[in-house]
Amino acid sequence: LDISCSVLFDNVSSLSGVSSATPTEEMNGAGNLMDFLDEPFPDVGTYEDFHTIDWLREKSRDTDRHRKITSKSKESIWELIKSLLDAWSGWVVMLLIGLLSGTLAGVIDLAVDWMTDLKEGVCLSAFWYSHEQCCWTSNETTFDDRDKCPQWQKWAELMTGHAEGAGAYVLNYFLYILWALLFSFLAVSLVRVFAPYACGSGIPEIKTILSGFIIRGYLGKWTLLIKTVTLVLAVSSGLSLGKEGPLVHVACCCGNLFCSLFSKYSKNEGKRREVLSAAAAAGVSVAFGAPIGGVLFSLEEVSYYFPLKTLWRSFFAALVAAFTLRSINPFGNSRLVLFYVEYHTPWYMAELVPFILLGVFGGLWGTLFIRANIAWCRRRKTTQLGKYPVLEVIAITGITAVLAYPNPYTRRSTSELISELFNDCGALESSQLCDYINNPNMSRPVDDIPDRPAGPGVYNALWQLALALVFKIVITIFTFGMKIPSGLFIPSMAVGAIAGRIVGIAVEQMAYHHHDWIIFKNWCRPGADCVTPGLYAMVGAAACLGGVTRMTVSLVVIMFELTGGLEYIVPLMAAAVTSKWVADAFGKEGIYESHIQLNGYPYLDVRDEFTHRTLATDVMRPRRNDPPLAVLTQDTTTVEDVETLIKDTDYNGFPVVVSRESERLIGFVQRRDLTLAIKNARQKQDGVVSSSVVYFTEDAPQLPASNPQPLKLRRILNLSPFTVTDHTPMETVVDIFRKLGLRQCLVTRSGRLLGIITKKDVLRHMAQMMNQDPESIMFN
Amino acid sequence: LDISCSVLFDNVSSLSGVSSATPTEEMNGAGNLMDFLDEPFPDVGTYEDFHTIDWLREKSRDTDRHRKITSKSKESIWELIKSLLDAWSGWVVMLLIGLLSGTLAGVIDLAVDWMTDLKEGVCLSAFWYSHEQCCWTSNETTFDDRDKCPQWQKWAELMTGHAEGAGAYVLNYFLYILWALLFSFLAVSLVRVFAPYACGSGIPEIKTILSGFIIRGYLGKWTLLIKTVTLVLAVSSGLSLGKEGPLVHVACCCGNLFCSLFSKYSKNEGKRREVLSAAAAAGVSVAFGAPIGGVLFSLEEVSYYFPLKTLWRSFFAALVAAFTLRSINPFGNSRLVLFYVEYHTPWYMAELVPFILLGVFGGLWGTLFIRANIAWCRRRKTTQLGKYPVLEVIAITGITAVLAYPNPYTRRSTSELISELFNDCGALESSQLCDYINNPNMSRPVDDIPDRPAGPGVYNALWQLALALVFKIVITIFTFGMKIPSGLFIPSMAVGAIAGRIVGIAVEQMAYHHHDWIIFKNWCRPGADCVTPGLYAMVGAAACLGGVTRMTVSLVVIMFELTGGLEYIVPLMAAAVTSKWVADAFGKEGIYESHIQLNGYPYLDVRDEFTHRTLATDVMRPRRNDPPLAVLTQDTTTVEDVETLIKDTDYNGFPVVVSRESERLIGFVQRRDLTLAIKNARQKQDGVVSSSVVYFTEDAPQLPASNPQPLKLRRILNLSPFTVTDHTPMETVVDIFRKLGLRQCLVTRSGRLLGIITKKDVLRHMAQMMNQDPESIMFN
Repeated sequence: LDISCSVLFDNVSSLSGVSSATPTEEMNGAGNLMDFLDEPFPDVGTYEDFHTIDWLREKSRDTDRHRKITSKSKESIWELIKSLLDAWSGWVVMLLIGLLSGTLAGVIDLAVDWMTDLKEGVCLSAFWYSHEQCCWTSNETTFDDRDKCPQWQKWAELMTGHAEGAGAYVLNYFLYILWALLFSFLAVSLVRVFAPYACGSGIPEIKTILSGFIIRGYLGKWTLLIKTVTLVLAVSSGLSLGKEGPLVHVACCCGNLFCSLFSKYSKNEGKRREVLSAAAAAGVSVAFGAPIGGVLFSLEEVSYYFPLKTLWRSFFAALVAAFTLRSINPFGNSRLVLFYVEYHTPWYMAELVPFILLGVFGGLWGTLFIRANIAWCRRRKTTQLGKYPVLEVIAITGITAVLAYPNPYTRRSTSELISELFNDCGALESSQLCDYINNPNMSRPVDDIPDRPAGPGVYNALWQLALALVFKIVITIFTFGMKIPSGLFIPSMAVGAIAGRIVGIAVEQMAYHHHDWIIFKNWCRPGADCVTPGLYAMVGAAACLGGVTRMTVSLVVIMFELTGGLEYIVPLMAAAVTSKWVADAFGKEGIYESHIQLNGYPYLDVRDEFTHRTLATDVMRPRRNDPPLAVLTQDTTTVEDVETLIKDTDYNGFPVVVSRESERLIGFVQRRDLTLAIKNARQKQDGVVSSSVVYFTEDAPQLPASNPQPLKLRRILNLSPFTVTDHTPMETVVDIFRKLGLRQCLVTRSGRLLGIITKKDVLRHMAQMMNQDPESIMFN
Repeated sequence: LDISCSVLFDNVSSLSGVSSATPTEEMNGAGNLMDFLDEPFPDVGTYEDFHTIDWLREKSRDTDRHRKITSKSKESIWELIKSLLDAWSGWVVMLLIGLLSGTLAGVIDLAVDWMTDLKEGVCLSAFWYSHEQCCWTSNETTFDDRDKCPQWQKWAELMTGHAEGAGAYVLNYFLYILWALLFSFLAVSLVRVFAPYACGSGIPEIKTILSGFIIRGYLGKWTLLIKTVTLVLAVSSGLSLGKEGPLVHVACCCGNLFCSLFSKYSKNEGKRREVLSAAAAAGVSVAFGAPIGGVLFSLEEVSYYFPLKTLWRSFFAALVAAFTLRSINPFGNSRLVLFYVEYHTPWYMAELVPFILLGVFGGLWGTLFIRANIAWCRRRKTTQLGKYPVLEVIAITGITAVLAYPNPYTRRSTSELISELFNDCGALESSQLCDYINNPNMSRPVDDIPDRPAGPGVYNALWQLALALVFKIVITIFTFGMKIPSGLFIPSMAVGAIAGRIVGIAVEQMAYHHHDWIIFKNWCRPGADCVTPGLYAMVGAAACLGGVTRMTVSLVVIMFELTGGLEYIVPLMAAAVTSKWVADAFGKEGIYESHIQLNGYPYLDVRDEFTHRTLATDVMRPRRNDPPLAVLTQDTTTVEDVETLIKDTDYNGFPVVVSRESERLIGFVQRRDLTLAIKNARQKQDGVVSSSVVYFTEDAPQLPASNPQPLKLRRILNLSPFTVTDHTPMETVVDIFRKLGLRQCLVTRSGRLLGIITKKDVLRHMAQMMNQDPESIMFN
């Protein structure tokens, strides 16, 4: 059995037409497995798997439900209480999502900490302690000395008794690789066997689901469980991946889980997506400890339909999640945020130049990464490579571990690395990066250390960082997209932070050694603290993350929440804007959109502007030379005709017209409803036979009992199908599809039905137009 | 000449139908004045004043323009540069808006400071210094002593030489009132004579404009100038009003001003509104020093169409504005925020009870304020009262000044009051509110002062605060809505802050005197600093502001930006949520929506959910018994027929059908275009006379030159009018109007034209349904 992770479809064209059979059939392999592992959501039954929902219909169904409850609530106290409970269920779901996703994030953080350290050694006093927890009680002053507490033993020391020497190094190296391979093998096996949907970051799929697509089981209980476990394993194995994207997926699974508690959400795909949007916000909130950033991320990056009510609820869920995480306190410092930093020096106008250069770097890295990663993923899909996911993961883990161990900056976990790079060098800092030559005559307050010349440790660190940068850039391209949970935020930020820190130290040393240069003269007196290399690291991280994901406001807000001050928002923004502009110049799509396109999901991006002159008539089916549109007439089609039509075509629905001559549209009927209604009538209604006439009119003629009885189907007829005229510009049609979330739209001229446009027709047309004329969408 | 400020229409029904004449004629009085003072935007000419724009049409016009520029850009370098400039013009406009609105806010702050102090005295060393600036160089330690520097002299001291005594008090009192009356008289006169639109907060009108309504001159240069000047006067006069709402109006005027620099924005009402949304964000950003809060306010409260591109640009504008304001540094502390606070104590779970009680108070105050204020404004509109706006302002100012002077908490400016109430009592604090009895044996670090028993000053302050609370509650109801610029944020926050501080002190004293009570036992040891009354004031302010405006996320984010820590976000959220729920239980509408409704603006609120079972056929015109719909036929109407139709009806446009018998719709033609086309043809086209036939078809017959020549009008025909079927539920129709921003929509059945629904029909229907059955929208 081959698992096709995020690769559900070959390309957009396989989704063509109103075809319903193709994608489902293609997915049968994984589909069966899913049926076995994941219960389908109870009672949904209104959309098939891999189909698009009709937002207007969902909304109208919810209004009906709500209207019913409201009118009932006047009948008795009990009904009133029920209606109140119904009104409050949204808040309850948010609370539960916040609590569960906060708890899961805390557990994941603790487990990752422990298992990452397990690769190097073990705590003798309590094996379930991570290195930091183990040495918590140590009373050494510097962090470095504290880390050498006797309770914590490296494997070589424990096994051979020697902590130093070549033998111990080799043994530690070997065990590090072994643990890494074990973790990644476990991760990929679990994903492969139990939950193929647990792989990847999940954000492209969640975007697609939120835009109104059904992927059953993608947010199921099994996915939740397996993704949580394998995320810990994958991050601990030392691969170049992060937990942020997968945490969004985990939070969305929580959201979906709690939806099933309330029929308001479980039975309405539109309402369910409101909850999922909020869950995505909670996911980012716990990933970074940034609730406002999380809400904006959900709004800007993930969500499709985001009413104001959802904004408020998302904020609530994000806050609850953040506070749950804080009360678990996985970082042991009662800080909310992942990378807490505090800088003591303002920035100067002249520094905008290196910040903007970092932005350019971020944009270039984003472009390079997206292109290379997509090319690699395409190769994986189309060649033999895709058939050996376990081997691939093992190989990449092996390479990563072998190359990572010798360099102290790649050996440790990526988030620790970022944390160190972000930090300003304090007085007690013992890291290599803070090996500056101090002036012994100077005594200063702890938090205002002047610029100093770099010592040998710093130069050493610079080399190692440069090597780490190259290594991270290359290995991340191959890692993202493997069949294990993998997020992109942390590796992207690491690349940016390394580059930023290198630039920061360079500027700092230049300013120290050449403070008479005209550019430094104005703001950098000798002996002052002018340059904060940690800030450069942060700016670089923002630039690279922006280049890859094309986030804008949410990126700046997340970074702002990390530093907690408006002071540094201008450097961050300058870098983020530059990075986005540079990256956009090479291609509008971020990594998520690229993966959506690679996988051919039917996703109608709200940000793509459609600026071509085509009309509805150019896009609708049937095309010239095609057979005429399959329609039903209101009072002349027989049951047999309908059955033949259903058998011969695979359309999702059929327009109903007055007569074939006049072609005046009266409604639209869903294939699914038609099949069910006829089946039902044949079984239960007397006199309905193949030659019975199907009536979509209000009244059917009274026929003698001996004749075949008419079959009245007006109640399954949608009397308000959406129509546009054939002269409607496609940009308007695209707008309508986007804003109203339509599945299909009928095309008429002077009241005469001409054809049909489905969401997939629109997507295909947009893809065609983009390829023909990509420049026209560049400057929007 | 009577100025009708925000009161443009009597009620919704005066906007009925597709009528174009009524509102314009009603406004002629003010209209003439506006024409004289304010140039109409050049070259717009596509919508008349007080008309609704067609968002789809605007968008499609912009796409055309953009397409043209892109295709031209390949022709030459110069065209390429022009296309790049066009692409960047949005950012340029944002930069300019940020710079100008930041500067104006800074100037307003400085001027208000100076003029507020001018009511009490003058700086002898430099008369243009405010009290604080005057005593800046004084080296006294406590704030109170510093305020008594010799350079600053009260009027009585300056005039009579006596600083103390009853005579001096009375003289100061008298001059205080005189200055207040002078300022407010100047303000109301300037508004009355030069810019009637400058009155009020402007937010209801801006919401309406952003939703697609044209109010010419509302955002004009004169309004900008007069609003800026009169805002200073109004705030300085000591009336119970704030500058926050008007600053949003000022920023939007700036936005409109800069739109006129670029034809991309000045000639497209849709694009213009994108800029205005961003300008609103910049306005709030400078009002509170909260850029993120500003963007969310624009998104949540003000804007209608808010694409992601606008989000990013709004953020940029808000940041530029905030940093411009900071570099002007009007508060002299290089802080960005209006009320900077720093608390040193965490909050405890048990404190949630008083916080939630404050939320209830905020909700009740919100309800009371909205009802009373709307009732008073309605009375102003319908009775003689509305005819004497100057007298009204003078009277209210007089009452305010007479009552405010004796109480030190109402005498000073409201923002100073809020600032004092928010602050924690530090060691150097000399205000009455910090008159606690210190334990002389205790020496503590400055920032961790334990709970102490209240001294007589605190009890005195409590009384004065209670009186101030009652006074503020009553006077604000009468102040908001007068014919001067007046914002609501600051008075609402003041009410909440006073109530909060009173509650805070009560809890603090209870905890001090009864720390053995079971509720205090767990968290309040004797001698500890458990309760921060300033935090209560802040929570109360958030609750009251929330009750009045029904802001949610943006409110919490603004408050979060003021404190700069996530620490206190839970208390703020608890209060904001409670306040919103309590207030919503009494009526869904915030003060802005209420004023929109009072004034009958055609505003389709995105938040109102329409949950009734009506269909398009119930709302469309013509109704039963009405004359049939006025339509044109595609090839049988003569020019004379058309002219008669235009003369006899006042509809904005006419559907065009194949023939009166078949009634099959082929398009829609605007009245304005029709009039212009016929006028033009009669002047320039030979042979077009009254009996000429108007052809909307693609081809017109060739007639001999002696016959009346046909008039071909297909190019002014909109071939893609929006249609729905008569069975479409009204909730779907409302959704379509909202999301696509339609002006009108045609109703068909089986391709046959039945009627028309305009935006105003939708609004009228919604208003009707709400009144009939208000409960059904309560639990959304």
